[in-house]
Amino acid sequence: MKIKKIKSKIKNLKFGINCTIIEPSNIYGSKFGKNVFIGPFVEIQKNSYIGDNTRVQSHSFICEKVKIGKNCFIGHGTMFTNDDFKKGKINRNSKYFKKTVIADDVLIGSNSTILPVHICRGSVIGAGSVVTKNIKKKGIYAGNPAKYLRKI
Amino acid sequence: MKIKKIKSKIKNLKFGINCTIIEPSNIYGSKFGKNVFIGPFVEIQKNSYIGDNTRVQSHSFICEKVKIGKNCFIGHGTMFTNDDFKKGKINRNSKYFKKTVIADDVLIGSNSTILPVHICRGSVIGAGSVVTKNIKKKGIYAGNPAKYLRKI
Amino acid sequence: MKIKKIKSKIKNLKFGINCTIIEPSNIYGSKFGKNVFIGPFVEIQKNSYIGDNTRVQSHSFICEKVKIGKNCFIGHGTMFTNDDFKKGKINRNSKYFKKTVIADDVLIGSNSTILPVHICRGSVIGAGSVVTKNIKKKGIYAGNPAKYLRKI
Repeated sequence: MKIKKIKSKIKNLKFGINCTIIEPSNIYGSKFGKNVFIGPFVEIQKNSYIGDNTRVQSHSFICEKVKIGKNCFIGHGTMFTNDDFKKGKINRNSKYFKKTVIADDVLIGSNSTILPVHICRGSVIGAGSVVTKNIKKKGIYAGNPAKYLRKI
Repeated sequence: MKIKKIKSKIKNLKFGINCTIIEPSNIYGSKFGKNVFIGPFVEIQKNSYIGDNTRVQSHSFICEKVKIGKNCFIGHGTMFTNDDFKKGKINRNSKYFKKTVIADDVLIGSNSTILPVHICRGSVIGAGSVVTKNIKKKGIYAGNPAKYLRKI
Repeated sequence: MKIKKIKSKIKNLKFGINCTIIEPSNIYGSKFGKNVFIGPFVEIQKNSYIGDNTRVQSHSFICEKVKIGKNCFIGHGTMFTNDDFKKGKINRNSKYFKKTVIADDVLIGSNSTILPVHICRGSVIGAGSVVTKNIKKKGIYAGNPAKYLRKI
């Protein structure tokens, strides 16, 4: 008996001009604007969107139903999520996955964890943060859970 | 003079039917049940066990002396540990490594860190948590350090 | 139109005797002492230094202007940083990147995040910590933000 091995792939991707991906990465069914940069060891699932000039750094994971705006910086090791494990079960049907929207000009520090939220334009998330609630007021946020620290 | 380069490998693995690994991953000397799924960019060390139907998502690290039950979900970027750095030194002898036991039906959110603990059946660990103590009562836990939030 | 794909590489590296790298890793323009070990899925940028006998475990990211001493242990999934996003912008010019110095004999637990700081000799950082300030007194630190827990 053999174990089934599947190689990481870059597949079914729509993208604008001047996009770069450092391999190995596992990216399928996503849509990119122009000038998008993706570092190595990144996984990006289908039904996600990454806007113009946005950089997704190494070791990040972007799941289904995540939409990231223009000119964003997604730090190394950032993990997005779309399942809140309601009732202690994982959702096997993607129609129950929750959406995440990162507006334009958002900077997310490395090793952050982003629950299914909206983060407003121009906000900064400190490294190592866990963002559990919508961020409606532009500012600098950090901590676990992430809290408002100060204005920019 | 050359630097020694060693390729990641899938080696000395015991496994049940219908297991899948997305490459590249570095997995050696582990034992899997059936229907185990391992995402890309995962490292799993020897003397570990992963139960039937459990999914280990991308970017995770599972070390020696970690035993994971059936039907578990190990979120993206989850890091297990087995050395408590007692006396400010790393343990070079694996007989001093501490054990971790994750019971059946446990869900661990992405980017969590699991110290050498026992987590009881059916518990849910929120994304970005750091679990520093045994979890004996089924429930939802989150934070750094992870604390009981509510029942499921 | 094609997307630009660049393979991870080990390039422009200076190193002492008996160094080992597990591939795939993306490492360029760094300098290593002797007996350095680098696990898989690691990115190390130029203008960084890693001292004799130091181990950098899987899934870690070491950026420009990070200097790590001798006999250190950098746990799995550790993320270093060099940009404090001042004024809500990323620094495109590396002369504004901040330095990090990890002294000899420092142990950093897995999934930690290290802001641009100095960590003094022999200190221990617990797994899952976010180190936001200089550590001047040898001891065990943990949490987000990391705080002094006890002496070693």
